[in-house]
Amino acid sequence: MFRPELFILGCGSATPTTYRNPTAQLLRFESADVLIDCGEGTQMQLLKHKLKSSRIHSIFISHLHGDHYLGLQGLLSSMHLLGRKQALHLYGPAALFKLLDLQFELSETDLRYSLVYHAIDCESKQHIAELEGFDVYTFPLNHRIPCFGFQFIEKPKGGNLRMDRVAQYRIPVSEFKNIKAGGDFITANQSIIPNSLLIKPAPAPVSYAYCSDTAYDEAVIKAVQGTTWLYHEATFLHELKNRAIETFHSTALEAALAAKSAHVERLIIGHFSSRYRETELLEMEAKSVFPNTQAAYDGLKVILDA
Amino acid sequence: MFRPELFILGCGSATPTTYRNPTAQLLRFESADVLIDCGEGTQMQLLKHKLKSSRIHSIFISHLHGDHYLGLQGLLSSMHLLGRKQALHLYGPAALFKLLDLQFELSETDLRYSLVYHAIDCESKQHIAELEGFDVYTFPLNHRIPCFGFQFIEKPKGGNLRMDRVAQYRIPVSEFKNIKAGGDFITANQSIIPNSLLIKPAPAPVSYAYCSDTAYDEAVIKAVQGTTWLYHEATFLHELKNRAIETFHSTALEAALAAKSAHVERLIIGHFSSRYRETELLEMEAKSVFPNTQAAYDGLKVILDA
Repeated sequence: MFRPELFILGCGSATPTTYRNPTAQLLRFESADVLIDCGEGTQMQLLKHKLKSSRIHSIFISHLHGDHYLGLQGLLSSMHLLGRKQALHLYGPAALFKLLDLQFELSETDLRYSLVYHAIDCESKQHIAELEGFDVYTFPLNHRIPCFGFQFIEKPKGGNLRMDRVAQYRIPVSEFKNIKAGGDFITANQSIIPNSLLIKPAPAPVSYAYCSDTAYDEAVIKAVQGTTWLYHEATFLHELKNRAIETFHSTALEAALAAKSAHVERLIIGHFSSRYRETELLEMEAKSVFPNTQAAYDGLKVILDA
Repeated sequence: MFRPELFILGCGSATPTTYRNPTAQLLRFESADVLIDCGEGTQMQLLKHKLKSSRIHSIFISHLHGDHYLGLQGLLSSMHLLGRKQALHLYGPAALFKLLDLQFELSETDLRYSLVYHAIDCESKQHIAELEGFDVYTFPLNHRIPCFGFQFIEKPKGGNLRMDRVAQYRIPVSEFKNIKAGGDFITANQSIIPNSLLIKPAPAPVSYAYCSDTAYDEAVIKAVQGTTWLYHEATFLHELKNRAIETFHSTALEAALAAKSAHVERLIIGHFSSRYRETELLEMEAKSVFPNTQAAYDGLKVILDA
């Protein structure tokens, strides 16, 4: 059964480098993708990794620092040039929409598709969307300007009827609904075939939370409590803790502490400062507290299983 | 003697490709650089080609279609993050400044350097700046939205005193000024050493004109008349002449006709449609009318000699 996939398109921070793009990631669901943040050059990254922008159903923008949204106007314009017709949903701070409208006005662009704005502004966790069998929540992060995390939680799914058993026990179609709802099957000679033999259970529901950019914060930990996969920024090594405090960012150690306190299953760290060309030390630091950690890199693809 | 250099950082058009960046070029003068247009990803291109943004003295933006300016906000922010102190001059349509100010406000960025805005809006050719021994002019192009070309014209320079002759004829320092102004030198025994023996002449002044994006237009040809080097857009092959008309762009043939009518010495064509992965046909088409043509490519470096 299809499991969502996460593609890291960029996991750098504000200062540009040749070895890491600014933040963007694509979350692939069965029949549509969503984009989370869209730093400069994201559309080039999509092209490079052969990820079609036409599959993107919604875009979520965490905040208005350039390394998280400056690729958006170009991507939206390209979708227009490429003939997109289906609506696109955009979630982000309301000021972003004002900015985009001004840019479309200046370039005299009359979009061929409908761009649906959903303003995000909350002081506590909020449900904002439902898509592809997932509930989407947003919650405040702790950054220099208003900044929001996103959490995608899969709804529990019923299992699939096993067609081999249907044939074996000659189960009539009229029984399917009852069996899918959990019922057993009673054969003509009154033997009971238990439901567990007839249903292939769905995979355990999975969840994914995105926290970039943020200082270490108990409220953030509470918001992502129990998430299967957590992406948490780790801009600095802990030796630069003071720099992290000044800039409202986290250290790799803090990202790991957040993962541990939130009882998540797996941690991906990213949003690395340009001073770290290699990320081994960041990963090692995080693993010392939370072993199930992986350092992101541009081009990383992860299957989000539970 | 130093001759200006042109670096093509991007010569694509609006639809993004993996093989060509959107428009940007850097013009290198002896002690400073200027950037002309700044499509998305320009700061990455500067890094890739090891061109320091700290050398950029002025930026010229032709118009507000995204493929010509969407990299600007990121570049200006990075200059701030990298500690720039010296003023930066920005020439472009006034609406651009409003947009940048809004973006700086939203990201709560208080620039460490002075960003000096110079609004461009003209109906005929205008002198807008003087830098590094060059006069800079702007002139209207013929595009779907207001769009301006730029021309850099070197001022004539006096030659350099030949120090080998100074030693040979024991010319006193008090004579230098007179010789540099064109005078001959008269030796103690009254022989005349003609000026031409004492001065190494400066290279012929050079000029460079930038025309992207524009339909073929007589007024543009008039504005760039006699320029040494012309960059003229050539979005399409002439077989797509109708598409060029619709979109206010030029064909490679038209770019060559413009170069010929303007009596320029050399032509560089660029701003190629994403449908042309290879540019041989575009270059051949232009050369059929104007043999001194070169098709741009990302990373092309040209020494602008006369």
